[in-house]
Amino acid sequence: MTHEFSGDERAAVYRAIEERRDVRAFRTDPLPDAALQRILDAAHHAPSVGFMQPWNFIVVREPATKARVQAVFARENAHAAGRFEGERAELYRSLKLEGIMEAPVNLCVTCDRTRSGPNVLGRNTIIDTDLYSTCCAIQNLWLAARVEGVGVGWVSILRNEDLREIFGIPGHVMPVAYLCIGYPREFLDEPELQRRGWAERVPLETLVYDERWGAA
Amino acid sequence: MTHEFSGDERAAVYRAIEERRDVRAFRTDPLPDAALQRILDAAHHAPSVGFMQPWNFIVVREPATKARVQAVFARENAHAAGRFEGERAELYRSLKLEGIMEAPVNLCVTCDRTRSGPNVLGRNTIIDTDLYSTCCAIQNLWLAARVEGVGVGWVSILRNEDLREIFGIPGHVMPVAYLCIGYPREFLDEPELQRRGWAERVPLETLVYDERWGAA
Repeated sequence: MTHEFSGDERAAVYRAIEERRDVRAFRTDPLPDAALQRILDAAHHAPSVGFMQPWNFIVVREPATKARVQAVFARENAHAAGRFEGERAELYRSLKLEGIMEAPVNLCVTCDRTRSGPNVLGRNTIIDTDLYSTCCAIQNLWLAARVEGVGVGWVSILRNEDLREIFGIPGHVMPVAYLCIGYPREFLDEPELQRRGWAERVPLETLVYDERWGAA
Repeated sequence: MTHEFSGDERAAVYRAIEERRDVRAFRTDPLPDAALQRILDAAHHAPSVGFMQPWNFIVVREPATKARVQAVFARENAHAAGRFEGERAELYRSLKLEGIMEAPVNLCVTCDRTRSGPNVLGRNTIIDTDLYSTCCAIQNLWLAARVEGVGVGWVSILRNEDLREIFGIPGHVMPVAYLCIGYPREFLDEPELQRRGWAERVPLETLVYDERWGAA
């Protein structure tokens, strides 16, 4: 077995990375179970500290449950909008920031901070590495979804306490992401926040330092 | 422009996800700059909350600098080994957990918690979403490296205070990952911790819940 990737395979992975989008506008057709399984399996193949695999995936399809989450979003988003002024506030209010109700599947991704017991290889000094592993799983999931033609949107304007209550998540488990998943109305050619003039991509070269913080 | 991925493209992305490994044994041949640039650019195309792009990348090649990091690892790893007993302690000590000196490039990935100012779209209630974004960037980097035939190993047995001091990282910036990057001696067919009997992959179906925490 060769461990090399062909030029075409390389290009496919870079394409998925470049064309992945945060999706907030979904078609309502259902997500086939087989596709969801493949996407979850991609997440499950993420790296994890000490092979801890601290993640769980709560698959949400019930409109009543989604509506409870959407109500939390609406409340928190009203607060958030108040932080911006003038044109920026207007632009903020015009952005569609979630597709909770319309996406056929919502997914709450969590991190069990006690999995594998008190001693986890590689997790003695930097305790949040379990959360970091869970985020790697989410990025795998996001890329897998992209190649399935499935959109994913991360809704971060929520409160973890509310997610705990809605889903019965115990105290030793941290909600990490609340995702909307389904077929998108479209995949935009650039990030929506860039297209709408909210923010621009920073030139990569300004982010890379040589040997020490701040050294070009 | 079609937004669909072909079957071959899909397979390539799943292959990268499945064959990505945490690499700790490197060949010492240099990493071409062009490959490093492509890998960093993949990281830079990760999703970020409010398009915040909070990451920086400190590229480390100087043996003297690596040696300082390696000394921190050695000290912390000696402590960590003491947490295991009997056969488990013996197995722990037999594992190679880092390739800091031999990897041609080390990379400290950081998160600037103040980037984009005090009001970041989507980051009002869950403040750590900037760290989560940085982890998504790391997973992009890891997959891009895999298709380049380049290995990445995440060294988590370090202390952030030491990384701050060694690299001059200011207080508002969080070190998120310290990575060893270079051509690997080999890509293993399964995770090393699994092959060596340290831990097993958990069956995915036990990690997926329906509508609520704990519901199968």
